[in-house]
Amino acid sequence: MKTSVSSVKVVKVTGEIFSEDNDLLVQEEPLEIRLKYNDGGAFKEKRLAVTMRTPGHDFELSIGFLLSEGIISSYAEVHKIFYCESVKSPEEEGNVIIVHLVEGKVLEDKIFDRNFYISSSCGVCGKSSIESVNYSCEVNWKTDQPKINVELIHRIPQLANANQQLFKHTGGLHASALFSSSGELLLIREDIGRHNALDKIIGARAIKEENNDNCLLFVSGRAGFELIQKSLAGNIPIMIAVGAPSNLAVELSRQNGHTLIGFARDDKFNIYSGEQRVIEK
Amino acid sequence: MKTSVSSVKVVKVTGEIFSEDNDLLVQEEPLEIRLKYNDGGAFKEKRLAVTMRTPGHDFELSIGFLLSEGIISSYAEVHKIFYCESVKSPEEEGNVIIVHLVEGKVLEDKIFDRNFYISSSCGVCGKSSIESVNYSCEVNWKTDQPKINVELIHRIPQLANANQQLFKHTGGLHASALFSSSGELLLIREDIGRHNALDKIIGARAIKEENNDNCLLFVSGRAGFELIQKSLAGNIPIMIAVGAPSNLAVELSRQNGHTLIGFARDDKFNIYSGEQRVIEK
Repeated sequence: MKTSVSSVKVVKVTGEIFSEDNDLLVQEEPLEIRLKYNDGGAFKEKRLAVTMRTPGHDFELSIGFLLSEGIISSYAEVHKIFYCESVKSPEEEGNVIIVHLVEGKVLEDKIFDRNFYISSSCGVCGKSSIESVNYSCEVNWKTDQPKINVELIHRIPQLANANQQLFKHTGGLHASALFSSSGELLLIREDIGRHNALDKIIGARAIKEENNDNCLLFVSGRAGFELIQKSLAGNIPIMIAVGAPSNLAVELSRQNGHTLIGFARDDKFNIYSGEQRVIEK
Repeated sequence: MKTSVSSVKVVKVTGEIFSEDNDLLVQEEPLEIRLKYNDGGAFKEKRLAVTMRTPGHDFELSIGFLLSEGIISSYAEVHKIFYCESVKSPEEEGNVIIVHLVEGKVLEDKIFDRNFYISSSCGVCGKSSIESVNYSCEVNWKTDQPKINVELIHRIPQLANANQQLFKHTGGLHASALFSSSGELLLIREDIGRHNALDKIIGARAIKEENNDNCLLFVSGRAGFELIQKSLAGNIPIMIAVGAPSNLAVELSRQNGHTLIGFARDDKFNIYSGEQRVIEK
């Protein structure tokens, strides 16, 4: 079992005072995702992607990634998922995952051309042209549901923050959290990469075959284009971000009848899209 | 000329009070980098990467990216750099850059297999296996130079912050800044992607053929593995980060005689590596 934090010796400086101390660091390790699938009667195993992630919830991350990228459309397309046991070096141990797809699942060869390396904050690596950045997806939510009230939105960042275990120790992590529309915390995940944290949420929910269309998502940082893309892929109609959205994020959210709230802190927030879901009481 | 910010109508909520207002958003647009080169007598032009970036300083970003990825070793290998004028759609206008390499420059074909999409925070996209994450580079600094004093380190974050123009308006940007070892601000760049901001610095310095081995780098966020990689590629011996480093970042910094300072805020900082460069007075 890999750990999510590790300790190092550091020199701490306060004002002009030097002292030696130990500091907890967030763990960052590469995870390689491979696909095993049936190609006209023969099994093939191919490397799909590498992501720099904080170890933990690796199966969820892998499934969430495949869903977000449109490579699978549900967890039912996965036969089984496991860590590779025949890795070449000790560094790879626990860092290579094989997703074995069901027999009938057909893959397009070009997905492997992408050869993507997902960085700690990268959700769409491997695309090779501007056209492929344009994103379309089918969401199946109602554009006026669920309703959430202002008071709940103000409370969400603190609710999530109180449950960020790793951040407390290392200060180096992003969190994604999923809440019901009445404010119940359903799931929280932390990772050095904001996209990984969200993929872990989407994967966890898909593995349990749970529907997100009555949920809201909290993200601890800014809301870029790729995070909205993942919110849509996970069929989560509302996103509340502590930080700022980008212009493309707002555009994508508006095009899809999604609700995007930014700068949610200090008793304030901005509604960038889908304000019909926000009610005063 | 593309802009770095744009305005949108939003609903602002303070406590329970709703009001309509305009909000400035940081611009996020894809930039495609193509290489033009001489391949055994014939010119070839191939697409190398797409990055989600904040428009502005696109040439610097492209050159910094090529240097960080080891595709060129100096700006002298570039014959010229320009925006593509024959794009297929209006969205691509000003978003496609062609880097024309000098005649003698030989490229390995495999760099194009990577087909990478650099996300807003991704510095190493396109690598396809765990082995390729392992990074080695040659730095040519002295492992005990330059020396910087504690008081300067405490001042660096404010000095950088005071010069972040776009952040003031949008709150949605990362900054990288380069200082001389005596604290003179040499260059500051902002971008929705922390890696882009740093690539813009490295590119700008390379274009002017300026040496960084007596400089220190400030980054406004956390220090992950990829940022250290870029600091090494840019031959900048000292990095001061407002946020936390990861375990891999500390490892890479230590292996290369680099100085890494984290959590630089509120009159405190931690020295993770290379403390011999930090002096009390």
